[in-house]
Amino acid sequence: MSADPQHRVTVAEIARAAGVSVPTVSRVLNHRGDVAPQTRERVEGAIRRHGYRRRGESRRSQARLVDLVFNDLDSPWAVEIIRGVEDVARESGLGTVVSAVHRSPESVRQWLGNLSERMSSGVILVTSALERSTDDELRMLDVPTVVIDPVGAPSVEVPTIGATNWSGGLAATEHLLKMGHRRIGFVAGPSHLLCSRARMDGYRAALESAGIELREEWVATGDFHPESGFRSAHELLSLPEPPTAIFASSDEMAFGAYEAVRRHGLRVPDDVSIVGFDDLPTARWAFPPLTTIRQPLAAMGMLAARTLLRLIARERLESPRVELSTSLVVRESTGPAPQDRSG
Amino acid sequence: MSADPQHRVTVAEIARAAGVSVPTVSRVLNHRGDVAPQTRERVEGAIRRHGYRRRGESRRSQARLVDLVFNDLDSPWAVEIIRGVEDVARESGLGTVVSAVHRSPESVRQWLGNLSERMSSGVILVTSALERSTDDELRMLDVPTVVIDPVGAPSVEVPTIGATNWSGGLAATEHLLKMGHRRIGFVAGPSHLLCSRARMDGYRAALESAGIELREEWVATGDFHPESGFRSAHELLSLPEPPTAIFASSDEMAFGAYEAVRRHGLRVPDDVSIVGFDDLPTARWAFPPLTTIRQPLAAMGMLAARTLLRLIARERLESPRVELSTSLVVRESTGPAPQDRSG
Repeated sequence: MSADPQHRVTVAEIARAAGVSVPTVSRVLNHRGDVAPQTRERVEGAIRRHGYRRRGESRRSQARLVDLVFNDLDSPWAVEIIRGVEDVARESGLGTVVSAVHRSPESVRQWLGNLSERMSSGVILVTSALERSTDDELRMLDVPTVVIDPVGAPSVEVPTIGATNWSGGLAATEHLLKMGHRRIGFVAGPSHLLCSRARMDGYRAALESAGIELREEWVATGDFHPESGFRSAHELLSLPEPPTAIFASSDEMAFGAYEAVRRHGLRVPDDVSIVGFDDLPTARWAFPPLTTIRQPLAAMGMLAARTLLRLIARERLESPRVELSTSLVVRESTGPAPQDRSG
Repeated sequence: MSADPQHRVTVAEIARAAGVSVPTVSRVLNHRGDVAPQTRERVEGAIRRHGYRRRGESRRSQARLVDLVFNDLDSPWAVEIIRGVEDVARESGLGTVVSAVHRSPESVRQWLGNLSERMSSGVILVTSALERSTDDELRMLDVPTVVIDPVGAPSVEVPTIGATNWSGGLAATEHLLKMGHRRIGFVAGPSHLLCSRARMDGYRAALESAGIELREEWVATGDFHPESGFRSAHELLSLPEPPTAIFASSDEMAFGAYEAVRRHGLRVPDDVSIVGFDDLPTARWAFPPLTTIRQPLAAMGMLAARTLLRLIARERLESPRVELSTSLVVRESTGPAPQDRSG
């Protein structure tokens, strides 16, 4: 290994010196718990001996920013997350830089460029705004990162904050089952998102426990926005045997479903019960007030910021994956199953 | 005037040297149009001769941030503004630092401290998150500032971006008058906000044009949030001669008013017509879909960011006050005035 002070020691060189793999060095650098103590010591020894410095380490001490990245800033949902992150960040003297990358590689590149220029101390990605390739770029920048609501099975190195989506899906469906519903439709979120899949699996698990076989036609897929909830619910209500209840995996899709129910000349909850997911501040002002699964969005933002601060301070995390609990909030959009309409 | 290179020339010294007042120097520094050409030249000459440098000018060239400050991040309204600002800022390679100061002097101080540390290029204040005194501090920091929806008569030096609130109030009320309503209630926003007062004046002007005398009991005051709309509408509907229509000066208050109408055993719009203000994305998904005054929130954010970029680039603004136009969006929450219920 070069003793040239100009030479930047790489992670690969540390790995070679310590006789471990690159991912192991990365785990140590990221203060992950899943490294054997002896291995950790060996790696830390190599880091000390070779004077490895994280990229940007010196800069980062003067940077007072965290980056919070969404795909889109187009939902009341986003403001809840921002509020949580900002609250914790500001108290620590950090500014919260909010960006939207619109699933566009160009915007992502623009943001990555800005990020490295502005010397952010860390990054919080929301429902993982980034593709695999930019994920790698981010790793190259070597900036501590936390993900809220990961898209897919997240890379083991990145801590994630989510909600108990599966339990929420289960609770919503069980609530409907308890009121006598047997044909329960489901409006899924985008299937590439882990949170969508977990909600759907919770729905399926509840049906199975009740001995009800899930029919394929009961599931429609939306994009979390009202319009897609409207379309999906319209599909479900047009079935020869329409569901008597619909569980929409976002409040906004539930609002769209309300409208579909009305267009079919039906009433919520007399003819069709509706359950949402999120508990946005407006859910209780919908008509009828929406029964929904509350996920603590602001708290998720706060926890993400706290976790990021710990990564920046090089603390060790007990657990790289945390799910905050969801809870059923019963309002007026759900009621007993009506007498069977379809005969 | 000292020639000591360590001595920082002050605005007061420039003013003395140019034989003008401090506000005039400030107007020149802020590229305002309302300075006579000869005066401007004299001031610019003094600035050149004495080597006045705006505080932070050298730093600012390396800073790639704008600060966007709200009182609270608690409304879908906020996300629209953020989206607009972020869109323009990111394209210019600037990060948008979002803060909430919660009307708390402590939070404001914290934010001001963070601001000067993070070397922001400029500040956008939303419904003026700051008190007079912090306004002064901000001027001391000498950071270009733009205000969206000013609280009160804004200081002449700060460019403001708003919507045509008066015209919006007028259009909403005229719409109701045209449908035969004669008793029209109004749910005002906080009276210290200019936008609230303008909406109210528009409402009053429309009534006056129609030869209707505004009765004091027709006006209730809320805080833009649903709960206050609910309470205010409840008050109005409890009058001996209740209004047949209510104009709420925010969509969220209109949603609250919907609920009050229902609690009174009445229907929207059959018994009571409701008009909102904002046209949030959820307005069309309310039941019934909300007739409202659309204000272009994202566009206001974009324009605020563009104006700030021009201030940072030291361009001259044609007009320090811009109001973007509002428009009436007719949906299903308004209908013909019912036969007089009160006799």
